[in-house]
Amino acid sequence: SKTITWSPLMAEKSGYRHFMLKEIHEQPRAIADTLAGRISENKAEIILNDIQLSTSCLTGIDRLYLIACGTSWHAALVGKFLIEKLARIPVEVDIASEFRYRDPLINSRCLTLVISQSGETADTLAALRQARTQGAPVLAICNVVESSIARESDGVIYTHAGPEIGVASTKAFTTQLIALVLFTLFLAQQRKTLADSQRQELIAALMSLPRLVEEVLQLDEAIEQTVRPYLHARDFLYLGRGNQYPIALEGALKLKEISYIHAEGYPAGEMKHGPIALIDEDLPVLVLAIKNATFAKVCANLEEVHARGGQIFIVSDCDCSDLRALAREYFIIPTTHDDLMPILTSIPLQLLAYHLAVLKGTDVDQPRNLAKSVTVE
Amino acid sequence: SKTITWSPLMAEKSGYRHFMLKEIHEQPRAIADTLAGRISENKAEIILNDIQLSTSCLTGIDRLYLIACGTSWHAALVGKFLIEKLARIPVEVDIASEFRYRDPLINSRCLTLVISQSGETADTLAALRQARTQGAPVLAICNVVESSIARESDGVIYTHAGPEIGVASTKAFTTQLIALVLFTLFLAQQRKTLADSQRQELIAALMSLPRLVEEVLQLDEAIEQTVRPYLHARDFLYLGRGNQYPIALEGALKLKEISYIHAEGYPAGEMKHGPIALIDEDLPVLVLAIKNATFAKVCANLEEVHARGGQIFIVSDCDCSDLRALAREYFIIPTTHDDLMPILTSIPLQLLAYHLAVLKGTDVDQPRNLAKSVTVE
Repeated sequence: SKTITWSPLMAEKSGYRHFMLKEIHEQPRAIADTLAGRISENKAEIILNDIQLSTSCLTGIDRLYLIACGTSWHAALVGKFLIEKLARIPVEVDIASEFRYRDPLINSRCLTLVISQSGETADTLAALRQARTQGAPVLAICNVVESSIARESDGVIYTHAGPEIGVASTKAFTTQLIALVLFTLFLAQQRKTLADSQRQELIAALMSLPRLVEEVLQLDEAIEQTVRPYLHARDFLYLGRGNQYPIALEGALKLKEISYIHAEGYPAGEMKHGPIALIDEDLPVLVLAIKNATFAKVCANLEEVHARGGQIFIVSDCDCSDLRALAREYFIIPTTHDDLMPILTSIPLQLLAYHLAVLKGTDVDQPRNLAKSVTVE
Repeated sequence: SKTITWSPLMAEKSGYRHFMLKEIHEQPRAIADTLAGRISENKAEIILNDIQLSTSCLTGIDRLYLIACGTSWHAALVGKFLIEKLARIPVEVDIASEFRYRDPLINSRCLTLVISQSGETADTLAALRQARTQGAPVLAICNVVESSIARESDGVIYTHAGPEIGVASTKAFTTQLIALVLFTLFLAQQRKTLADSQRQELIAALMSLPRLVEEVLQLDEAIEQTVRPYLHARDFLYLGRGNQYPIALEGALKLKEISYIHAEGYPAGEMKHGPIALIDEDLPVLVLAIKNATFAKVCANLEEVHARGGQIFIVSDCDCSDLRALAREYFIIPTTHDDLMPILTSIPLQLLAYHLAVLKGTDVDQPRNLAKSVTVE
């Protein structure tokens, strides 16, 4: 029979089965849009006209607070690594619903940066107001223009991800990471904590990210073909170290949100202080094994998991026969500057959650119990 | 037949079936021992002769780093609440295996406090050495006298918990919390951030803790009788806010360690940003509902869990018919100063993990894959 199978809704999905999958695939474009206009023509400097704060304000701050909820909180955790390493300011990351009841030690020399896709997250908005009451300058990273959080902040760095319809955040997350890199480089530029050559190296790496993300997205089909044996998995463990630890948390959250599988993220070094007791032949363990300073430690963790029979998934920028021998599933991604690797490792984890959820038949774009924007406390 | 059923090992267990249960019941004594000699005769001041650091060092610090692994890391998270609230110094808590690879922003004005039961935890020892290299004064909270961490620190606050044999830490954890309270009050005393009356109120509350812990321990039998329906539970969620959030993490870790049930702790306010998708009729959700500033928010979270059919366990210092109507299991504990409530709420969670593990028939004192003291990295 000849029926028209394109609904107006489908059209909005541009042929993708779900908004989430469309949004995952939009990431190269979204990242390019978030970078656009923020790098000088000679590729040497960051331009952040969005920030209304004076240079003297930015150079005078003692500490930074990054405040957010859910996925945005994971972006903030990556932000701490970036800012402390490159701009050399102590950063405290707090969950908005915790911060506001804490009587936080905050004053006019503590820059507060809140992160929220919608700009309407109730706890984050309340935290912003409390920080302002205590005299702190407040910046925001938001996706929705003219949202409450954007309006009440001293300055906004917008992510230009475009509308995100899927409840499980994907392109909003990776563009938040881009905004954090831009902000960090700008801060480092103002505070002169980074050599020009280092900044330029990172700028060059940023500019090639859309192409690298495109490359990672080519794993889509391989990941889809991988998931069937894990259809009835009840649990997953995600492990990472350093700037990959927040990505382990984010990957686990994605799986929780849309497949209802109890996934938990852990810093890999903590595994032997408890979670290792959970490991048996039934437990898939996903490990982010990036070729950086902690690679050898992560490999040691991998061997511990393997010795206890865990089903190992590896996401790595390194095609290595030793790892291949341990892995049940092995996803190789391209490599780039280590500070940007969290953006690349996020993507296979989005795809894994997506394909497992589709196979389970959950309502991927509207998972049970969840709202896109949490406007209640 | 008349056989002698007391082995030398049993004798060491003083009639208890497992070391862990013995150690849980030793907590009133252990807490009293950790307090002994550290409160002035007139009950007005804290005496911490163990700390070798001068008053000028303690008053001159800008920030504190608390560094630990596993259960001791949870104690550190409670410590952050105590120190920031009462001594008004910003505290950063870090996992030892993360801290040491971070290039941390630490200097001679950042007091570093490491926490380890054994005093031999490899990652914590390495973190201590790194902090010293960067010029930071280092204190330790340890249980084992003359351990490596104790020897390499500028001062030690010993917990006097006595030997802990069970791999899952219980009395070492609660006495670490006591040590943190003592340290915080001492710091507040030196820095004059707390009125005498407030300090004396906390000291009085500390002194009545052994009796209150004894009272909580009377829940032992009720908890034992509760666990059977949850024998085949595959997952547990533990929720808390503020200073109860680390206790949610610790309760979940206990269950993981000895019963191999995948329990996860979450700050209750984050539930609606993801974990709520997991909640169905099969999921037990334990909520720490203490009558403090966030009580109403916790109750709202409880209702969200109830609306989705989750099996609710409540630990509360408040016998309230509204909560009773929502709860499958309801454990009432005595109340005390809110800053000390984490010590009381820890205990039913230890008992819950213990009795579930015994029912499952796991090796409670020597759970699979775990070592008492993690001396490898």
